[in-house]
Amino acid sequence: MTARPSRLKHSAFEALDREDPLRRFRERFDLPEGVIYLDGNSLGAMPRQAAQRVNQAVTYEWGRGLVRSWNQHGWVDLPQRLGEKIGRLIGARPGETLVADSTSVNLFKLLAMALRLRPDRRVILSESANFPTDLYIAEGLVDLLGGRHELKLAAAEAMEDAINEEVAVVMLSHINYRTGRMYDLPRLTARAHAAGALMLWDLAHSAGAVPLDLAAAGADLAVGCGYKYLNGGPGAPAFLYIAQRLHDRVSTPLSGWFGHARPFDFVPHYAPAQGIARALAGTPPILSMAALEVGVDLMLEAPMAQIRAKSLRQSELFAALIEQELEGCGFEVVSPREAAQRGSQACIRHAQAWPIMQALIGHGVIGDFRAPDILRFGFTPLYLGYRELWDAVAVLKEIMITGAWKQPQFQARVKVT
Amino acid sequence: MTARPSRLKHSAFEALDREDPLRRFRERFDLPEGVIYLDGNSLGAMPRQAAQRVNQAVTYEWGRGLVRSWNQHGWVDLPQRLGEKIGRLIGARPGETLVADSTSVNLFKLLAMALRLRPDRRVILSESANFPTDLYIAEGLVDLLGGRHELKLAAAEAMEDAINEEVAVVMLSHINYRTGRMYDLPRLTARAHAAGALMLWDLAHSAGAVPLDLAAAGADLAVGCGYKYLNGGPGAPAFLYIAQRLHDRVSTPLSGWFGHARPFDFVPHYAPAQGIARALAGTPPILSMAALEVGVDLMLEAPMAQIRAKSLRQSELFAALIEQELEGCGFEVVSPREAAQRGSQACIRHAQAWPIMQALIGHGVIGDFRAPDILRFGFTPLYLGYRELWDAVAVLKEIMITGAWKQPQFQARVKVT
Repeated sequence: MTARPSRLKHSAFEALDREDPLRRFRERFDLPEGVIYLDGNSLGAMPRQAAQRVNQAVTYEWGRGLVRSWNQHGWVDLPQRLGEKIGRLIGARPGETLVADSTSVNLFKLLAMALRLRPDRRVILSESANFPTDLYIAEGLVDLLGGRHELKLAAAEAMEDAINEEVAVVMLSHINYRTGRMYDLPRLTARAHAAGALMLWDLAHSAGAVPLDLAAAGADLAVGCGYKYLNGGPGAPAFLYIAQRLHDRVSTPLSGWFGHARPFDFVPHYAPAQGIARALAGTPPILSMAALEVGVDLMLEAPMAQIRAKSLRQSELFAALIEQELEGCGFEVVSPREAAQRGSQACIRHAQAWPIMQALIGHGVIGDFRAPDILRFGFTPLYLGYRELWDAVAVLKEIMITGAWKQPQFQARVKVT
Repeated sequence: MTARPSRLKHSAFEALDREDPLRRFRERFDLPEGVIYLDGNSLGAMPRQAAQRVNQAVTYEWGRGLVRSWNQHGWVDLPQRLGEKIGRLIGARPGETLVADSTSVNLFKLLAMALRLRPDRRVILSESANFPTDLYIAEGLVDLLGGRHELKLAAAEAMEDAINEEVAVVMLSHINYRTGRMYDLPRLTARAHAAGALMLWDLAHSAGAVPLDLAAAGADLAVGCGYKYLNGGPGAPAFLYIAQRLHDRVSTPLSGWFGHARPFDFVPHYAPAQGIARALAGTPPILSMAALEVGVDLMLEAPMAQIRAKSLRQSELFAALIEQELEGCGFEVVSPREAAQRGSQACIRHAQAWPIMQALIGHGVIGDFRAPDILRFGFTPLYLGYRELWDAVAVLKEIMITGAWKQPQFQARVKVT
């Protein structure tokens, strides 16, 4: 433990807000009164322009344009056009990123591509604490392929050693959904390549939250989520990335008509489109994509270096405040304290995490519970102020002092996302 | 050829509109002035309520409710809830229908399920003139599985004979996307079952257009489209149906977290949910689903027998009008004239189909071109009047008489859907 820092004061948080270069972005979002929103890593907040843009897509593009809008309003190219924009957020080259389907479905496509690129290898390597859908999708693919492959899991600390010449593809979440621990993306990518394996990154908790440079890292494959830090709306379509050098060699298992070389010729046999478009499957959900575009456009306006600096400061201050204000209450900060290993969230362990989080939500501080004992708080620098962090911890302190979390309404277990 | 019917007159079409029991539904849709829309089989028109409902989902459910809306506004159950409603349109039993992903992705899931239910059989049987994405998806699955299976194609007329004991699953579009030819669904289902095969129906051009009773037919598996006759908006999510008797025996290859038995327990291994929910993969696109629900609700208000009666009358009158008004202009009606074999569209062949359709669209009559030589017109009884049919044919006649279709702007080939 380093020397105890000087005591944090409320006034310092107010000063940070005044000096915040991202402060102007707050008004671009519509957040409800009386809520401190620390869950943008589960569902990002609504950009003010989203309602207007989606309404335009519904009433004007669909209502007036009808089927003509596939061409006249560019719906037919929207997966690529929006993919290009996301590509700029993740350091992809032009033509390497696409919006399509869900993260789960995209993982399936890219895992299947990877296995076919390494036909002599049988192992998908992932992390035992990876987000479950990643593991489930890998299990489903292995099962479908008749057990010729194997999903092997390693702990994060043991990952580098686990990458060997049996491994066809290493599939990792760049930032862990629960702990916020972040891998060294270039280092792991290089490690995979050194062993002759492909590297597939899940950027669900990274895109829009931390600087990414997939091209510089030589990343092969990646997927990511539209509804978290990209503020694309509930269940927003996901994205996928395929390095250009692989385009001619990958074939998608979900060979639907939108990935065809000439989809509107209606020829009887599949022929993959050139480039990233071959990773498309069915008709894209235009209304959900219209909302996502607003979130992505907004993210592109903000300098990523400022986002990252504020995010790190927020997560550091939040953890420090928890320790200062709630000493002896049973909380343990489990997110990495080392900036280079930390995503844009704080993860706090407490034996009563469930009712405490329910009480927090009941008092207007929205975070997440993650089984079995984790309080998860996300930091979204575009719309989260520093004073809100102080206020959130003050609410938590009040809940612990008064024992409000023990009230029966906070004990009931219901489904949450 | 039967005896020539008496000459059709404009006044008869006006009378049919006055007597139309579905006339009141027209005002529930917002259609642009100056357009006769005969393309609801490609993209259904916009229900007036769609804009309001989607706006509510954006501003209130997402904007105010934020992540809480997964529970408070029932997003988490929306795939099942909306599936139940569609199930009533296709004659499914409760718990057999789900909204998820795209038609292409759902086809992949159900084909893979079917092959695993018939491990001793190697053939997917389909129709050579099936909608391409169905064939592409089957090709992709066969390829992924290492060539142990085979996609065999037969012409529609030869289909029954082609179903033999090699066949694991028969995959057919109930109504052909190009010709409008409709299979006898109960008959083909029984024929597949007699050979020990499973039957997978693609209802893209059927749901909301013709009466369906999957339960009575004993259908095994089905998929369908949300953006055609269900008026769910551009790229609306698709649906899938799995007969209840199969639920415990099917496993999805796209085993994402939303299909898990306990998705929010975040356990490391996949375990399928009970019932139809196991066919879910990733997080559902809520905004697109909100729009779809409006279209489905509207469809549920209208008696299907009235829809079918009007649809048949419209397609019959339209074909008869083409023959009466455009004799000698090179048009050939290729949709079946027999009502029992006809979906809700008319398919007209002409050597100059492309520029003629472009000229029609340029003059406000929106239909579809389907390569190489088909003009396709869809009939959507909820919002299409009889007089519009007269007027559409009058426009077509004018285009042919004046040679307007020969103008250069109608010759250029661009992408269309």
